[in-house]
Amino acid sequence: MRITQRVRKMLDWYESDNPGTKANLARILMEGKLGGSGKVVILPVDQGFEHGPARSYAPNPPAYDPHYHFQLAIDAGLNAFAAPLGMIEAGAASYAGAIPTILKVNSSNSLAASKDQAVTGSVSDALRLGCAAIGFTIYPGSECAFDQMEEIRELAEEAKSVGLAVVVWSYPRGPNLDRAGETAIDICAYAAHMAALLGAHIIKVKPPTAHLSLEAAKRVYEAQKIDISTLAKRVEHIMQCSFSGKRIVVFSGGEAKDLEGLYDEVRGLRDGGANGSIIGRNTFQRPKEEALAMLAKIIEIYQGKA
Amino acid sequence: MRITQRVRKMLDWYESDNPGTKANLARILMEGKLGGSGKVVILPVDQGFEHGPARSYAPNPPAYDPHYHFQLAIDAGLNAFAAPLGMIEAGAASYAGAIPTILKVNSSNSLAASKDQAVTGSVSDALRLGCAAIGFTIYPGSECAFDQMEEIRELAEEAKSVGLAVVVWSYPRGPNLDRAGETAIDICAYAAHMAALLGAHIIKVKPPTAHLSLEAAKRVYEAQKIDISTLAKRVEHIMQCSFSGKRIVVFSGGEAKDLEGLYDEVRGLRDGGANGSIIGRNTFQRPKEEALAMLAKIIEIYQGKA
Amino acid sequence: MRITQRVRKMLDWYESDNPGTKANLARILMEGKLGGSGKVVILPVDQGFEHGPARSYAPNPPAYDPHYHFQLAIDAGLNAFAAPLGMIEAGAASYAGAIPTILKVNSSNSLAASKDQAVTGSVSDALRLGCAAIGFTIYPGSECAFDQMEEIRELAEEAKSVGLAVVVWSYPRGPNLDRAGETAIDICAYAAHMAALLGAHIIKVKPPTAHLSLEAAKRVYEAQKIDISTLAKRVEHIMQCSFSGKRIVVFSGGEAKDLEGLYDEVRGLRDGGANGSIIGRNTFQRPKEEALAMLAKIIEIYQGKA
Amino acid sequence: MRITQRVRKMLDWYESDNPGTKANLARILMEGKLGGSGKVVILPVDQGFEHGPARSYAPNPPAYDPHYHFQLAIDAGLNAFAAPLGMIEAGAASYAGAIPTILKVNSSNSLAASKDQAVTGSVSDALRLGCAAIGFTIYPGSECAFDQMEEIRELAEEAKSVGLAVVVWSYPRGPNLDRAGETAIDICAYAAHMAALLGAHIIKVKPPTAHLSLEAAKRVYEAQKIDISTLAKRVEHIMQCSFSGKRIVVFSGGEAKDLEGLYDEVRGLRDGGANGSIIGRNTFQRPKEEALAMLAKIIEIYQGKA
Amino acid sequence: MRITQRVRKMLDWYESDNPGTKANLARILMEGKLGGSGKVVILPVDQGFEHGPARSYAPNPPAYDPHYHFQLAIDAGLNAFAAPLGMIEAGAASYAGAIPTILKVNSSNSLAASKDQAVTGSVSDALRLGCAAIGFTIYPGSECAFDQMEEIRELAEEAKSVGLAVVVWSYPRGPNLDRAGETAIDICAYAAHMAALLGAHIIKVKPPTAHLSLEAAKRVYEAQKIDISTLAKRVEHIMQCSFSGKRIVVFSGGEAKDLEGLYDEVRGLRDGGANGSIIGRNTFQRPKEEALAMLAKIIEIYQGKA
Repeated sequence: MRITQRVRKMLDWYESDNPGTKANLARILMEGKLGGSGKVVILPVDQGFEHGPARSYAPNPPAYDPHYHFQLAIDAGLNAFAAPLGMIEAGAASYAGAIPTILKVNSSNSLAASKDQAVTGSVSDALRLGCAAIGFTIYPGSECAFDQMEEIRELAEEAKSVGLAVVVWSYPRGPNLDRAGETAIDICAYAAHMAALLGAHIIKVKPPTAHLSLEAAKRVYEAQKIDISTLAKRVEHIMQCSFSGKRIVVFSGGEAKDLEGLYDEVRGLRDGGANGSIIGRNTFQRPKEEALAMLAKIIEIYQGKA
Repeated sequence: MRITQRVRKMLDWYESDNPGTKANLARILMEGKLGGSGKVVILPVDQGFEHGPARSYAPNPPAYDPHYHFQLAIDAGLNAFAAPLGMIEAGAASYAGAIPTILKVNSSNSLAASKDQAVTGSVSDALRLGCAAIGFTIYPGSECAFDQMEEIRELAEEAKSVGLAVVVWSYPRGPNLDRAGETAIDICAYAAHMAALLGAHIIKVKPPTAHLSLEAAKRVYEAQKIDISTLAKRVEHIMQCSFSGKRIVVFSGGEAKDLEGLYDEVRGLRDGGANGSIIGRNTFQRPKEEALAMLAKIIEIYQGKA
Repeated sequence: MRITQRVRKMLDWYESDNPGTKANLARILMEGKLGGSGKVVILPVDQGFEHGPARSYAPNPPAYDPHYHFQLAIDAGLNAFAAPLGMIEAGAASYAGAIPTILKVNSSNSLAASKDQAVTGSVSDALRLGCAAIGFTIYPGSECAFDQMEEIRELAEEAKSVGLAVVVWSYPRGPNLDRAGETAIDICAYAAHMAALLGAHIIKVKPPTAHLSLEAAKRVYEAQKIDISTLAKRVEHIMQCSFSGKRIVVFSGGEAKDLEGLYDEVRGLRDGGANGSIIGRNTFQRPKEEALAMLAKIIEIYQGKA
Repeated sequence: MRITQRVRKMLDWYESDNPGTKANLARILMEGKLGGSGKVVILPVDQGFEHGPARSYAPNPPAYDPHYHFQLAIDAGLNAFAAPLGMIEAGAASYAGAIPTILKVNSSNSLAASKDQAVTGSVSDALRLGCAAIGFTIYPGSECAFDQMEEIRELAEEAKSVGLAVVVWSYPRGPNLDRAGETAIDICAYAAHMAALLGAHIIKVKPPTAHLSLEAAKRVYEAQKIDISTLAKRVEHIMQCSFSGKRIVVFSGGEAKDLEGLYDEVRGLRDGGANGSIIGRNTFQRPKEEALAMLAKIIEIYQGKA
Repeated sequence: MRITQRVRKMLDWYESDNPGTKANLARILMEGKLGGSGKVVILPVDQGFEHGPARSYAPNPPAYDPHYHFQLAIDAGLNAFAAPLGMIEAGAASYAGAIPTILKVNSSNSLAASKDQAVTGSVSDALRLGCAAIGFTIYPGSECAFDQMEEIRELAEEAKSVGLAVVVWSYPRGPNLDRAGETAIDICAYAAHMAALLGAHIIKVKPPTAHLSLEAAKRVYEAQKIDISTLAKRVEHIMQCSFSGKRIVVFSGGEAKDLEGLYDEVRGLRDGGANGSIIGRNTFQRPKEEALAMLAKIIEIYQGKA
């Protein structure tokens, strides 16, 4: 596998990782249409766990089949495909080597009696299934946040020791945060920073709003005149909070919007220096041709062509 | 052991499993009168744990003896026999090799002060007793659901690593579900999907009603015009939610009804593409001859002969 | 050691156990005056833990000395002696090989702030002390019942793997049971059945009353006309609920009563097919000569001579 | 090391222990001025953890230095020195072999938000520091009592397996005990008995009062006319409750009192057959010369000379 | 590496530690401008975790980059740099051997729903990253204090066994302490003492005020006329409470104040015999030149030159 200069430089950020982990990061970064550019688009399919199968796949029934998603990620030229255990197991052999996979090792669901996640996969599972990374969600601010941090600490240590990469979904919520607070710029920046401090290689956060949630933070943002007026500026700030841009940060699709709204948002992410997008529902809930067209467009945006 | 083309194809669904696990799935699928057809009828006897011995066996006293159930499953030409530790221990040597057994490794009971299950068996137990699979119940939606998911994650990883198959009983309940919700079609489909994502090889759910429980799901079922008007259609939907039919799904006996009602239900399951039935009380609470006649009829239905 | 036909047949019930465990069961069954008859009388001395030393031993001060109990069990020709760690440690070497011992590995006490038991011994302890079995109490119906079941599951698996036998004290209690319910026939039968399903070799329950506690069970007992009119009939039912009599079931001394009342109760146990008695307080709280006379009489009852 | 007949006989009480543990018990029993007599005086210094440094050491500032306590115990001719991890670490090499040490492996403190103890040392720590025993506090009757019993069970099993002795501080407290109940004779006797059943080699309890706390116990003490009128009689009863005097039982200093009061108490302990005293605050809070004089006097009392 | 007589003497305090741990303590004590003097200044950067990135780094944006802190500590001639996992990983290879690092293995954050810390690093992490020590925060007095003590016990045992040093941040808080109590002299002294008893090599506490918090302690401080009138006297007392000055104790920066106030405080620490300072925010929130000047001044104070 050829490694571009850009990617080689990014791998240098992870100076404490072993060659195995660097190789897996390289596999993700060199895959697909954006391969080598330092930008990534990843397909995550944990929607069925989180919201149930019909709400996830009924709009586009071929998506009930796990193979559909592997093939979609490949056909669209994406960098990686992330999913829970059962879905990866269902296609890992058919698509062995065809696209880097990320085993999502914890999951929540809409029936849950509490706001937590269950650990549903392991590092051993990731290894036997040929995955490049494990993925893990933390809810900073929630009652289970410390437990989750201790879980990912343990899983990350094990993953790194066997040459896997670690992707952390950092989604703040909990008693100290209202709905607006969950995507406030100070909170998203904090979420990204904690994921970096926890040792994540790739960080996933939501696109931040211009809202400021914590009073103590608000005072600093205003005193230091941190520019959070545009999405690009806010993303820039988040990249800075991720070790001065030396961690890979990708953004989820954000609130429901039309295609143009989505493209505009991706342009904002790109202009702020984001490493890319991780888009689920917006892709697999459309007919495949439409999804491919949309992903092609997003990739062009990251390539600076659109 | 001869493996039919149909079964060989089903084994291919489990593309990430080792030959040991595939062999045990094959043993279950090739056993008994339905052997090789892709259909299965399984005898589960955890009723004594759940409801107590007299409520389970007094209507047919020979059933107090564990050997009775092994013999019944064999005489009826079923695919497998599932029971808790003590019951399997009581007959495993006498019936070694005579019929595939599934060790039910967690159990609840009617005296319990909380709605959970105790882990009462292990993968090591299953191995020393010559079982083909472990069985585990989850209660999605309950306060203990995340714990149960983490328990089955661990047990399933261990089971798969030593060549056992994994059967998950997925029975939703809990604070967000009323009685009708527990068998609502959206909830049963969700339960089957989660079991699949957790890595189950064989999934057991209850026959679904036409009720829709979650508001957010209801909107989708209506918008997407998902046909849930007949049991066959609902079962078809559940099979689709189980990786487009690429996981084995079996259904419990459902609410108490007369024999004709039961046969009609089985016809609905069959017509919807279910892989089979797992029927406890209805079998061992009748005199043996009646039970054998009933099971023969059910098997004929799955064979398309009745 | 000679093994009678009767005992050999009983060992066959435990068809999944290794020769080590069968040998230890045989040691208990072949010991003492009842040796070889299939009947057993066991001396349990966990009273000091449960109620304190003075309440246990002050009526007969020699009993403060652990050696007293070893010697009493031997002199009376009993089958085994059961006690907590410290008491077994205090005599295990002096009486090595002289009588089978059962290490009681959990214990409660009268000062406890909650209705649970602490695990106070291990399988390793049992091995180093030359015990034939471990003993463990479960409280089905209590808040800690699932935890206790998971503890005994783990301990029993380990015990069986090293050739020890497993004795389960099954004492229902908890929020769904009133005082009368704790010894109701449906509850005692259920308690025995659960112990059997948990993999116990020897089950200890309390002598059941004719009371029926669970409404759902009551309906079945009445509909099926289960005869619970005499102690013998009730014991017969409990034996049936213990795998059709293929598990060893012993009964505690029951409520305080005079000697004739005790003998009558034992006759009822015998006539119902019980495997024997496990009698603590009634023995060691009397002067030794009286205790020996009483035990001799009980043994004669089980021999059918009294 | 010479072993007296008296000590040899005491070692025989511990008939299930390995030679390593017996050797460590012998080291404690043969050390110091009381060496060989079967009596012991032990210096415990966990006061700093329990009440803070100034409250413990300000009255005698040299005691802030851990070496002070090692030296004091040696100079006074005591049998052993007990302290938490950091204090033992601070002197273990300087005083290697000079006096048997007991690593106190759990500790509480006056700032604590709950009435429990933290495990602060391990068996491995005790081994690497050359200790003769581990020490552990249980609070029978407290909400954490079962957990503590399970902790000491595990630690004691490990300690015994590597030849260490086990000392249990048994201090009843909790919702069922008022202040007077904590030192009531029935409760102290029960506390000693439970420590013995848990497998302790050396038991520490508080000097008992003539109060009776549990109603059920009171009835027995009165019915059996147990003499609890003098401290000597009460201690005699506690020794009886400790396996008929076949476990080493030592007593703490009891309530604050003047020197004569203390000496009188020690005479009562001696006359009741106690194995000795374990005295902290009373020793290290005095100038060293005074402490040495006091300890010399106490030793003389145990020698029957004062 | 040359070891001064002063440092050699300090290493002797840690008489129970293995040569590996002593070597790592020596590395810290011999590093930088204060190397060999027995005094240390350490840079801790866990502020981003505790308060979020903008509140920590926005005043001096280069500090967003982890390398900035490594370089700052080196340029200022400090003894060590302490930070959480991700930050150490981000620079450990670039600065391998350049400055001793302390892996902070637990962390809290401002979004947290409870007052605890998550374990976010391990001893294995510290080893693979070439750290000299692990750092751990305890909150004596808090609901999680016992758990934290058990965590550090386990981590410290492991760290010592592989030759790492152990630094404990001891910050009292909780239901029995009001705000003033958290820095009261009796509480700070108690906090330092508990850290020493837990086996810490280096203890971090806050500069104490003249307040006395616990009533029982107050009586002793007054009766014993402990001089707590000046910061120097209070620090002297804390050193005494840290094994008579035979443990390394460093102090945090205390309440916000101007530079002269800070220097005065450091003079008080120095005059009381403190081993040094551990100063975070005050350093990295200033432009680098200012920070270097401030640190140079602080070092001069510890050298007795200012």
